[in-house]
Amino acid sequence: MKNVYKESVALHRKNKGKIELKSKVKIKNKNDLSLAYTPGVAEVSRVIAKDKKKAKTLSLKANTIAVVSDGSAVLGLGNIGPEGAIPVMEGKCALFKEFAGVDAFPICLDTQDVEEIIKAVKQIAPVFGGINLEDISAPRCFEIEKRLKSELDIPVMHDDQHGTATVVLAALINALKITKLKKEEVKIVLNGSGAAGVAISKLLLKYGFKNLIILDSQGVIYKGREKMNKTKEELAKISNPYKEKGLLEDVIKGANIFIGVSKANMLKKKMVKSMENPIIFALSNPIPEIMPNEAKLAGAKIVASGRSDFANQINNVLVFPGVFQGALKNKVKNITDEMLIKAAKNLAGVVKSPTKNKILPNPFDKEVVKAVARAIK
Amino acid sequence: MKNVYKESVALHRKNKGKIELKSKVKIKNKNDLSLAYTPGVAEVSRVIAKDKKKAKTLSLKANTIAVVSDGSAVLGLGNIGPEGAIPVMEGKCALFKEFAGVDAFPICLDTQDVEEIIKAVKQIAPVFGGINLEDISAPRCFEIEKRLKSELDIPVMHDDQHGTATVVLAALINALKITKLKKEEVKIVLNGSGAAGVAISKLLLKYGFKNLIILDSQGVIYKGREKMNKTKEELAKISNPYKEKGLLEDVIKGANIFIGVSKANMLKKKMVKSMENPIIFALSNPIPEIMPNEAKLAGAKIVASGRSDFANQINNVLVFPGVFQGALKNKVKNITDEMLIKAAKNLAGVVKSPTKNKILPNPFDKEVVKAVARAIK
Repeated sequence: MKNVYKESVALHRKNKGKIELKSKVKIKNKNDLSLAYTPGVAEVSRVIAKDKKKAKTLSLKANTIAVVSDGSAVLGLGNIGPEGAIPVMEGKCALFKEFAGVDAFPICLDTQDVEEIIKAVKQIAPVFGGINLEDISAPRCFEIEKRLKSELDIPVMHDDQHGTATVVLAALINALKITKLKKEEVKIVLNGSGAAGVAISKLLLKYGFKNLIILDSQGVIYKGREKMNKTKEELAKISNPYKEKGLLEDVIKGANIFIGVSKANMLKKKMVKSMENPIIFALSNPIPEIMPNEAKLAGAKIVASGRSDFANQINNVLVFPGVFQGALKNKVKNITDEMLIKAAKNLAGVVKSPTKNKILPNPFDKEVVKAVARAIK
Repeated sequence: MKNVYKESVALHRKNKGKIELKSKVKIKNKNDLSLAYTPGVAEVSRVIAKDKKKAKTLSLKANTIAVVSDGSAVLGLGNIGPEGAIPVMEGKCALFKEFAGVDAFPICLDTQDVEEIIKAVKQIAPVFGGINLEDISAPRCFEIEKRLKSELDIPVMHDDQHGTATVVLAALINALKITKLKKEEVKIVLNGSGAAGVAISKLLLKYGFKNLIILDSQGVIYKGREKMNKTKEELAKISNPYKEKGLLEDVIKGANIFIGVSKANMLKKKMVKSMENPIIFALSNPIPEIMPNEAKLAGAKIVASGRSDFANQINNVLVFPGVFQGALKNKVKNITDEMLIKAAKNLAGVVKSPTKNKILPNPFDKEVVKAVARAIK
């Protein structure tokens, strides 16, 4: 890791960050100036002032989104504040452009108050065609996303939730193909109930998985348990149909699928051994719930992680560029679960013959963005 | 005008606006991804989280400013709201890049409340190295600029005020050279006390002009007059040393310089005839206080306007790109009047031999940005 850290800092210093603005029109003489700026631009302003919708065809709003964070849950670094978040958000903007041709600008907000974040995003919304929320801690992220989705007329998506959920579902679809298991029959244990855990749970249940058990730091989530916030009470209602209780080591017995969005080294070898035909998605970063080679030694059939140095990387970059490319192109106002399920199916389909070491396509495969984008309509 | 309007709308439609984002680093394989994004970027975030100032060398903050408007006073169009303002702000961003290599992003705020604007700009400030306020109506703009200048640690400038004031001063410096008049001796009448009028007044007085009379829609501003807000009371204290009263037609008599930042056709031929060796800056747009040819017929020695189709265009594009290029390059936290006076002198100096039809340089002259930028330090 040391080298990649050092090289990355050097790259950022040399380039003074990673993104720049560029004029799409030439401005080389007075005539150019009179069209791109005054007096010509006055007419464009008049046209939009008369009909706000025209901003979507006559201005950067057509193809530009904001990547918004408050720096409260950045990567595995935690609450490092808006300045610390800049390199991550700026990197995401670079990926949006490189992978999908979507113009994205980083907004790192100097407030962590839910109402103030909502207000600030609404106030800056006029120039943007979409809002990608990023690295905002749970449970604050749920309220922020819900409110912005209902109060703005442009698409809003919290990528840590729905980007992750979509790529996990795509990976599961292919893992089931390989193992010939059925979504109605498998038992899934999901460890972690932060932003990603909640969104994965909801999307998997909507897709048709039946037996899903979710755990937080207190253990299994079930109806009537103590110490649950609103979000968890909602999860308790829709998951855990056999009302299992206890800790991870209890409910993992006989399960087919483990999904970890929790912490390093939470899944022990003996737990894997207690599973049936185990499929392990250990997504904690940078250190997974179990190292892939250990999981395999313990009998795992298919292993995925969040890391690029092992097979089967569960990487949001497979999803977010295509989601917003599709949303902008197809003038989608609301990105729905149905669209994301379709996106997951399409993404899984990009791998023509999935194998245990290739359940997801390479993010540099040009088909990826197309497959995802055509689901968002 | 009709053609330029039609062509401008067509240009905006074809290009979907005028600016785009671009990645400064290549992202073509897994290694690139690990440096521009995870895991490498985590270290850059850690470095900045530990010392916020490093955002200015390791992120887009190094070279990126916001062009912020609330759409309350857009060009000559008035209060057309944030969406209508987008093409103007986006155009300004294109000019920042094309003329000075400064990355600029348009922020059109969906609020016109002074406190909310201040709060929103402070909240989005982390990614920006400077704030260019634009087309915000007076007197709101004064409070917004003052507060942001004192509460942010990045340079803030309201271009309608200080960009305009700087280019007017540069033009006056050359006009005096040609007419051999002295700043201590001339009588200036300034019609209009909006954002531009106030800033021009203050900068001219600071530069050393003594006899300056300012008018608003009620007539001459003088100490003790009724119907004056705080800003005008302040102006009354520092201007009009001979306590003149009355209307434009009264005080224009014997004046040497007229500066109009008011409305179409306010300056009549007979008023020009009542001046001495008249220098006329008729800056109302698109229709000036007097048409340049009429002013000349009435005896004006030098005429300038805001229009590109006449000689001597008073155009902010001569100033704002260089101001922010200099501020970013020289890590200036506060753009002062002294810097702007130096910028005006430098700008005037770009015209080696000023003539009555060339008191300002061509904005496409590469020396312009350099001359202005080296004053901002």
